[in-house]
Amino acid sequence: MPLLDLTKLVVVMVRPRNPLNIGAAARAMSNFGSRHLRVVNPFRLAFREARSAVGGSAVLKNAEEFDSVADAVADCALVVGTTAIRDRKLDPPPKMLDGNSANIIHSILKQGRVALLFGSEKIGLTNDDFSYCHWLMTIRTHSQNISMNLGQAVAVCLYELAREAESAAPAEKRELPSAEQLEHIAKGLLEALHISGYVKPGTDKMFEKKARQLILKMNLEAYDAKLFLGMLRQILWKLRQSKKASG
Amino acid sequence: MPLLDLTKLVVVMVRPRNPLNIGAAARAMSNFGSRHLRVVNPFRLAFREARSAVGGSAVLKNAEEFDSVADAVADCALVVGTTAIRDRKLDPPPKMLDGNSANIIHSILKQGRVALLFGSEKIGLTNDDFSYCHWLMTIRTHSQNISMNLGQAVAVCLYELAREAESAAPAEKRELPSAEQLEHIAKGLLEALHISGYVKPGTDKMFEKKARQLILKMNLEAYDAKLFLGMLRQILWKLRQSKKASG
Repeated sequence: MPLLDLTKLVVVMVRPRNPLNIGAAARAMSNFGSRHLRVVNPFRLAFREARSAVGGSAVLKNAEEFDSVADAVADCALVVGTTAIRDRKLDPPPKMLDGNSANIIHSILKQGRVALLFGSEKIGLTNDDFSYCHWLMTIRTHSQNISMNLGQAVAVCLYELAREAESAAPAEKRELPSAEQLEHIAKGLLEALHISGYVKPGTDKMFEKKARQLILKMNLEAYDAKLFLGMLRQILWKLRQSKKASG
Repeated sequence: MPLLDLTKLVVVMVRPRNPLNIGAAARAMSNFGSRHLRVVNPFRLAFREARSAVGGSAVLKNAEEFDSVADAVADCALVVGTTAIRDRKLDPPPKMLDGNSANIIHSILKQGRVALLFGSEKIGLTNDDFSYCHWLMTIRTHSQNISMNLGQAVAVCLYELAREAESAAPAEKRELPSAEQLEHIAKGLLEALHISGYVKPGTDKMFEKKARQLILKMNLEAYDAKLFLGMLRQILWKLRQSKKASG
């Protein structure tokens, strides 16, 4: 299950102030296969600092600077603004970041570019910025702490957009031991319990079942069954020795 | 569609070095309704700095410090390690962060605590850290840029875990032992292996990991863990007797 293709997604940071956040956004973009970073009216020093960072990614080095949101999104077929605002009346109301909004974005990405706008650390996107957006999107967070760190918000959005919609989990491939091997383990455990005095006379049958059930429920893989049997045999060897010595 | 309940999730940061990352993790936790932050052997100055940050969240102020992974996860029913490693052969191989792994975690969160481990910025979790994990989890990223920023990785994991699945698989109901109880079993098995001569001198560390992993993979329920520990203790008692007799 590879990542979904985000090469035509354009991340637009509007008036970012902290170079660390620009760097963090670029790093998340590299992680999730998104390439086009655009920055609108950054705090100038911050942008220069972020761009010249040692080990800065290709995303950062190729970042483009714009004077207005209009210019930054001009070639995009869909413009989506991100916001933490929920109470203020927004029209249209924000969609939640989830599989549904991701599907809409991907349906457009098949045809052209989609801009994803992030506002400044302090005040986010303004109403003027919103006016360039086809719709707004918000990350579902705890009601008492809705505002996310900018770099983390970018990472979470890209993760969701790159994330393949759920399909059933592929069956795990496990090599299993034979019932016979498991029975050897159960018998070994039982003998150890006998020698050590755990099994009281007359309760053998019950403990045989208990030991077998315990081993079966361990759901061991073939390798682990072999390992465990080897350990048990060594322990048994020692216990038998002591039995002989004391007997 | 509210957030899923993460109040019993425990985020464990192992040897974090950068206070900004500790703060970022705590912020993401507040955003997604997770409360328990534990820090193992942090770069001391970093932890103090993060904790005393102005505007630091309740999560950060209540963060607990531990000297070992074992102590930090002792009261957890499931321990999941995060890793960016894909090529190195890991056994069991990491699960992808997705709805399926989230479902497994939520089925355990219904009964008890789940620890989610994050390693240091530079090297992540070590093989020794891995040995305390029931399984490992990785975030699906672009093949050329797999390593995520620590704070962003925490945010993405919590987002996925708090995110309502499109369709949830019915959770299994099993009462699970604590990591501490499982550690008792592993330690007991190890002692038995020592006395019986299975462990050769100089290989203690390797066998300690092997024994712990074997016990974790058994996926024991609480009742069976108690039963198995009782058996092991009796066997150990006998082995110790023979050791005294021969010593």
